[in-house]
Order: sequence, then structure tokens, then C-alpha cells
Amino acid sequence: MALPPNLTEAEFSAALDEFSAAVGADWVFSSDEDVALYRDSYSIHWDEPEERVASAAVAPANVEEVQQVVRIANRFGIPLYPISTGRNLNYGGAAPNLTGSVVVDLKRMNRILKVDEDRHFALVEPGVAYFDLYAYIKEHDLKVMIDVPDPGWGSPMGNSLDHGVGFGMAPFRDHFAAHCGMEVVTPEGEVIRTGMGALPGSDSWQDFRYSAGPSVDGLFAQSNFGIVTKMGFWLMPLPEAYLTGTISVPRYQDLVAMVAEVNYLEDSFLTGLPSFSSPLGGGSEQSPALASLMENGWPSIEQLEQFVDSQDGPAWSVTLNFYGPEESVRANWSAAKRRFGNAIAGAVFEEGEFLTLPIPPEDEANLREKRRFGIPSLEAFTLTSRTALTADDPPEGHADLLIIVPRTAQANWDCARVLYEIYTEMGLPPITSPFSAPSSFIPRSFIRFILIPTWRDPERNRTSREIFSRLIDRCAEHGWGDYRTSPAFQDQLVGTYSYNNNSLLRFQEKLKDSIDPNGIISPGRYGIWPANMRNGRA
Amino acid sequence: MALPPNLTEAEFSAALDEFSAAVGADWVFSSDEDVALYRDSYSIHWDEPEERVASAAVAPANVEEVQQVVRIANRFGIPLYPISTGRNLNYGGAAPNLTGSVVVDLKRMNRILKVDEDRHFALVEPGVAYFDLYAYIKEHDLKVMIDVPDPGWGSPMGNSLDHGVGFGMAPFRDHFAAHCGMEVVTPEGEVIRTGMGALPGSDSWQDFRYSAGPSVDGLFAQSNFGIVTKMGFWLMPLPEAYLTGTISVPRYQDLVAMVAEVNYLEDSFLTGLPSFSSPLGGGSEQSPALASLMENGWPSIEQLEQFVDSQDGPAWSVTLNFYGPEESVRANWSAAKRRFGNAIAGAVFEEGEFLTLPIPPEDEANLREKRRFGIPSLEAFTLTSRTALTADDPPEGHADLLIIVPRTAQANWDCARVLYEIYTEMGLPPITSPFSAPSSFIPRSFIRFILIPTWRDPERNRTSREIFSRLIDRCAEHGWGDYRTSPAFQDQLVGTYSYNNNSLLRFQEKLKDSIDPNGIISPGRYGIWPANMRNGRA
Repeated sequence: MALPPNLTEAEFSAALDEFSAAVGADWVFSSDEDVALYRDSYSIHWDEPEERVASAAVAPANVEEVQQVVRIANRFGIPLYPISTGRNLNYGGAAPNLTGSVVVDLKRMNRILKVDEDRHFALVEPGVAYFDLYAYIKEHDLKVMIDVPDPGWGSPMGNSLDHGVGFGMAPFRDHFAAHCGMEVVTPEGEVIRTGMGALPGSDSWQDFRYSAGPSVDGLFAQSNFGIVTKMGFWLMPLPEAYLTGTISVPRYQDLVAMVAEVNYLEDSFLTGLPSFSSPLGGGSEQSPALASLMENGWPSIEQLEQFVDSQDGPAWSVTLNFYGPEESVRANWSAAKRRFGNAIAGAVFEEGEFLTLPIPPEDEANLREKRRFGIPSLEAFTLTSRTALTADDPPEGHADLLIIVPRTAQANWDCARVLYEIYTEMGLPPITSPFSAPSSFIPRSFIRFILIPTWRDPERNRTSREIFSRLIDRCAEHGWGDYRTSPAFQDQLVGTYSYNNNSLLRFQEKLKDSIDPNGIISPGRYGIWPANMRNGRA
Repeated sequence: MALPPNLTEAEFSAALDEFSAAVGADWVFSSDEDVALYRDSYSIHWDEPEERVASAAVAPANVEEVQQVVRIANRFGIPLYPISTGRNLNYGGAAPNLTGSVVVDLKRMNRILKVDEDRHFALVEPGVAYFDLYAYIKEHDLKVMIDVPDPGWGSPMGNSLDHGVGFGMAPFRDHFAAHCGMEVVTPEGEVIRTGMGALPGSDSWQDFRYSAGPSVDGLFAQSNFGIVTKMGFWLMPLPEAYLTGTISVPRYQDLVAMVAEVNYLEDSFLTGLPSFSSPLGGGSEQSPALASLMENGWPSIEQLEQFVDSQDGPAWSVTLNFYGPEESVRANWSAAKRRFGNAIAGAVFEEGEFLTLPIPPEDEANLREKRRFGIPSLEAFTLTSRTALTADDPPEGHADLLIIVPRTAQANWDCARVLYEIYTEMGLPPITSPFSAPSSFIPRSFIRFILIPTWRDPERNRTSREIFSRLIDRCAEHGWGDYRTSPAFQDQLVGTYSYNNNSLLRFQEKLKDSIDPNGIISPGRYGIWPANMRNGRA
């Protein structure tokens, strides 16, 4: 069993007794087999000394118990690592940044405190999972839609605090941006409420984000400034209908206008998440024709246009997803066709499915993508098996890079080319091609997802780590930053945000020290180490 | 001339010399007549000892000069009060929270650094006014629309940092929520960039709000955590068309369903800012019939329904404002009519104006409301003359309360009734009636605007202050918080956000002390005093 840094076994045992007195002995977990449940099953350091493991876990039942746990930790100098439902696969799972931390498992705090269908919000505790919230909404027949990530087993609070994203309309898809109001236990054990929650008796906690004065909410995401115990979310009213339409364009360079038109529609709230693709081979699945084209390196635009001409079908497609009244989704699709028709000669339009909402329960199983309708699922677990890199040799897990790329065709191409070069340099099969299509889960950004396999084999993990590490730095050299990663890479990643000698991180460190003088909460999370550990950071 | 606290005239004179060396002698203002320009012309303490006045002003030309000014201020212990264009009438104007502060006037930093019409954003400096940005967009024929407040002479940066609001589609109307990326000079003189601005070479600063780790942006609004020197804003793509439609409903209680339906449309991004009204007398302009109804106090719902029946015309109306392609705005209006028709028996529909955008320059003057089209104007200056309270006796200015009310008809009624009672208690003509309509400038909230006149007469100002002060506390007792006010009332206001013994403020104070150890930036702003002045707060 790991111990918290600088604690003797006897001291730790005394601390566990105090935790037991606070939350009940049944809710303190310190046996090897219990603590093993908090390991990161996707760890890229599995069974190596560097694997980050907890010393124990405690599961408080309410805010007062969280406060007691925090106060005990301060007295003993024990680092805490709060989790909500503890999913977060490929971003570290339930395992802490610092070995020896005590996981504060908030799974017992799982009340859905309010869902308002006239003002379209929810107020939940950390242990509420998307599945729970969805079941509640169905049970009470509420006319709201949640925006779910995939897989949907995690917690709305945990997901948004890790800057998770979903599949619906733009403002809701950035799950942290859609939050409204928090309750937080500070690292010193005080309870604060943000926004209108600070005004006793206010019924506007989930209506209005601010109070009077600065907003501290952003400090609690991807960080270690407190333990969030309640959080509100804005929900989309349940749309009456859903319509898809696919637009295909004939030339390679048509992607420029296609992206601009999609940006226009999305930023005008006329479409939900667009899905770009190319039938000519987006990534690892290269056709023999494309492989042959690539034999002499990255082709010129002229060569790419000729290649497109020589193939059947379009160069690029995008599927738009419209939500709203039937009148509106049909009109938005008409407007999209008119605009694309004017902007891109030879654009071809194909109307897709039309559905009215709510989806009858018996039809849910037949949906092509449940996540487009706010229905949580585990469909994403087919993801790793879809990459050519791993199809014949499935890994235990994966560590993703999520690279933010400017929302233009040119930036998408530049990023695909650089990744192609990096993979080629490393002697690996490239994961990108000139036909890699952009994706845009976070509103107003393109994200390039890069899946790196993780294993139970230290040798193979070492290779994966080298790839991951090189990708972070090489992408950063081009101005493309990863925005979310597992503790194994957080120091390196945050180091790339280096403007003015890492002045942002140094500013965050001062803030951290002021509200967590003992460095109790999640030391090292996203590169923020408390003062007493700062020299020891990786 | 006022002096900074604890400085002798000789010390201050030495400091002014250093400021002159940093920014040029022409850009340090210390004569009485120059400093008077920074007075708050709407001050509710005009010419009284409590009026908050500057000691001097300095106008740096760039970020490096801002850093120098901050370092000099730290050495001398001089409080600084940064302003962008220095408007902010009725929230304190250009005058500081603390008498003797040196105003840092950022008017010379007025570059429009970028407006991107494919990704729909702007990056500006503090001294850029809405008028400047609008002129730039017209000059370059860019297909974007800014969201303007009214009056539009202020700065997008200053307005958003004061949590200002506008008149367009919901996500853009909350000007701080629509920001993306900042550059800030910290109180110790360091430069940080937030979000992707922290990644050198990134072109995504205005695409993506976060970096990796926590977001500090919220700390810089309505506060004193640094001097913002660059800021990005998301813009709406220029809509192709604009359509209005008015819905009127016959019964008093129809407002319940009307609000719910409007919430649905707004939260689904199907309409822009709705305008609610009642022909039966919303506030100060009570008809004789309504005055007679009110003679025995606030009427019952039954009495109100009877009153409505006895009058011509509807009980309530709402005008919806649709932005988008012609197909879409017409479809959204059709859907709205269908939904209201189903929800409210007897609803009546009247289609309003239809316009295509951009508005030709020669037609701008004829627009009923320029602000609906992102066109800055000074039309709001007719505002105070429109209230019965002041029509025959125009005040010099006004101090507004902006009370956040839950977005339901019932809360709107409750607030109107409580305000009626407070005004009656005070022996003043009531400003609300049972027919006061909600307004919703901030997305997802109702705001009740209350205008309190300010004068050049200390007696009358004292009365205004008593009214203002009582309103803050009485509204807070009902859970309705003001969210923005002038320095004269900030301590009292922030005091109402008192959950858990003001734990939010105490948390903010710790953060403030950590990054501004000398308490240099805007002491007292929104109730946040530095450690060395905390006991002296009002």
C-alpha cells in the first residue's frame, strides 16, 4: 500500500481512524483490493514505479463530511484527490496526480436536486451520472435535453470540470461553458457558493452566472482549487424535431468554402455539431490509390485536385444536424443548400433522417447515434477497435491528445501534414492524410484527436509515451495545443503554455498557494503544484 | 487636488515625474481641470466629501508602458484605477473607488488587432470604442455583427469587464460570456495571456477559451485583479435577414405560459432579445383606470382578470426578434405562432418589420432600434426623460439598480409587488404595477431596472441614496440581487452576497492578496479591499 508523502504508517493509520469517524468506517477504503479499484486501467505507466496510485479512499455522504475530510487532511498534511464518479478514462481515470493521495470519492453524493423544464436547467451533486440524469428526465417526462459525452457513464459535474465536450448544439456542447452556479468546499474546509448562490434565498442560482464582483468559477475546472459539491447546468429545451442533411463538394480546395459556410451556420445557431468526412481516406484507412499518391511524400494541391478528379465521388462531405421545430429545421436545411449552392459549384445535397422528439423508448435502440439526442450510451467503447493501428492487436486502453487547431481548412491541412511527417519520422504508419477531415466538438475550434495505445507491457508503454511526448511538443511548436490529458503528461503539457516564461502558470500558483496553504487538494493537477512541492515537479 | 492615501505632496510629485518618464509628460494629467474630467458626472455624492475623485491620470501608449506604470505605483504605494474609454455612466464613470487613486486611462491603446469574418471574432485593445469597431467593420465590409450596448460610445472591453449586456442573440448579449482570450498586466507588472494566448505562436487565441488547466478570466471582470490590455470577442455572423413578430394574449395569467414559451424559443436560439410589454400600464405611467384599481392596494388575481376584461386590448404582448436566413426567420415565426396558438387560447399575432442585412448606410437613420443590428448609437440618452418621476424635473444623471429576478411570470409579479410596497412605504410614487413586464437583457435571467435620479444637490442626492440603499437590502431579502452598481454602493451590494458569512468575498480577498500584495489595483472595487485597507471598508 502506498503512503501519503512524509507520513509514517502510524500517522496514516491515525488519519484513517479520523476519516472513519467522519464518514463511517464502511466508507473508508484502505485494503489493497479496494484501493486497486481506483487505479487508472488505461495507465501508460501500468505496474511501473511511476504509476500514480492512491493510498486510500474516503466516500463522504454530504457537504459537511467533505468539510471534515478536508480539515483532517489539513491537520495531517495528506493530499486529497476528489473524483465525482471516477470515470475519465484516458485522462487518468480515478487515479490521483500524486502517489499516496487519498481519493475523495463523491459517489454517495448523488442527488438530482432540481431539473426545471421552464427555465431549462439542472442542479446536481457530483455522484450523479449522465445515465441517472437521463433516467430522471424520462421518468418525470421533462421537456429538456442533456448534452452527453460518449461514453455516458460519467458525471455531468466531473465531465464539465475536466472541460469535457458533447454532441449537441454549440453552447451546450462545451460542458463547462454550460454550467451555471457551483457550491465548493475550499481547501481550508469552508463552503462557498458562486454566482447567485452567494445570495441567501435566491432562486436565480441557475439563471445567472455572476454575483456582483469577479467570477471564480473557472478556477475549479482542470485544477485543484477546491472540491465542487453542487453544480448547475443549462439544458437545451427538448427540440420538436431533428433533421440531417449531407453536402458533398467535388474539389479538394472546396473544403475552404465548406468550412467557412459551416462556421457561418454553426455560429448563427442554425445547426448542431457538423460531421466532416472524406470518402478518399481520412486517416489510417488509406486506399491503395491514396497510398500510391503519397509515395513521394505530401502531394501538391494540383496533384490532390488531379487525384480527386481521378476518383469517383466527392472530395469532402459534411453532415449537418438541425434541431428545432419542423418548420425551422427544414428552413435551415433549405438555407444551407442555397448558401452552399451559391458558394461552391457542383455541391450535392442529400437529405438524411427526420425524427420527431422525444424519441419513443422502443426506438432508442435503433438510433444511429444516441448521443445526438442527449441519450447516454457506451457506444464509444468500439472506438479503439476502429483504428488500423490497433485492429489486429487491441491495446488495453488509450491516451488521447486533443489538439486545438484553428477553424480553417488550411489549418486542418497543415496539422494533418505535420502529423504525417512526425509519424513518418518515427517510423510509424501515419494517422493522417491530405483527406483527414476536421472535427469540431468544442464550439468554434477544430480538434484533432490522436489516440495513443496503452498496454499492460512496460516496453510498449514506453514507446507510447515517447510518441505522446513528442507529439505534444511538436504540435506546440506549430501553435496547436493539447487541452486535456492524463496526469502522466500534465506537467509537460502545461509547460507548452509558456508565454512570458510561463507567466500564466506562475499566476495560477500564487492563487493556489493563497487558498490552499498546505497544498492539500490534488497536488500537481494540470501542472499546479503547491509551494512545498513545486521544486519537485517533473 | 486629492493625494493618494499616505503620500506626501513631495512623494506624489516624485511619482508623477516617474510616470512622466514612463509615458511622456504630455500623458500625465494632474492639473485640477484635467483631473476633473475623470469625475463621475452622475455621482450621487457630487461635491460632497464622499465623492470619489482621482489624484491624477496617466495614459500609457502600450503594454510596456502599462507595466512601467504598475511598477512605479508598487514602489510608491499608489492605488491605480484602470479605465478603458472611461464611459460607464451610472456605474461610476471614470472615477475611482478610492479617492486619491491615479486613473490609468487606456484610451491611447486603441488598435483593432483583428476581425476575422470566417471565424467570427475580434481582438481589440481597451481604448477601442464600439463606434470604432463598427466603423472598421463597415469600412472593410466584413460579414459580422457586433453586439452593442446602448449608449454605444463605450469600449467592448470595458463594457464586458463590467458585465455589460446588449440587444442581440442570447450568447452574444452577455458581453463577458462572449469574450475569448485576454492579455493582462498583473498587479505586480507581469504580462499574462489567458487561453490559447499562453501558447506561443497559437492562432487559436480567439477560437478556444481555455488553455490546459484552470481558467482565470472570470477574475478580471468587475474586479481589481489586473489591467486587461487585449481582449477577444466572439461575434455573430452577419444575419441575412431580420423579422419581428408580436404576440398578444388576452388574460392576466397568460403571462405564465407566455414566459415559458419565450424561454423555450430563446433557449433554443430561435429568437433574439424578446421585448415584453403590457398596454395596461407597466410602471410609472398608470392610467386613471389602473390607478383606481390600485386604490386599495395590490389587487387579487381575480380582480386583475376582471380589470383586463374591462379594458380594450390584450393583457400582455411580446415582440420576438428573429435573425437568420429569410427561410429560417419566417419558419421560426411560424413555429412561434403555432406554439403560442396551442399554449394560449386567444393569442393574437402580428407580423412586424422584415429587413435584409446589411442595412444600407442611407437606411440606418430610419431604423427604429439601431442597437438591434449591432449599430452603436446614443439613443439611450433619451431614457431618463421618459420616466414620470423625472419628466418635469430632469435630474443630472441616474444610478440604476439591476435586479436579477428568476425567469418566471410569478417572480416578475412578486418583484413588481415588493417594489410597489417599498415605494409606497417611502411615500414615493410607485414605479411598478401589476402590469410591469419583465425584461431579459442577460440571457436566462429577468432584470428589473430601477432608475434612481442623481443631482447636483446634496439634499436630493441624500434622498436618492436612502432609496437606493433600502432597495438593495429589501430586494436581497427576497433573493433578488443587484449585479452591477457604482462604487458608492459596491460594499453594501457585495455584502448582500452573504452566504456562509460572506465566504465568497473572503475567498476572493485571499486570491486578491496573493497577486496584489501592495493593494495597487482599484482598491475596493466590488467590495474587494486589499489587506492593508480591509478594516477601513465601509
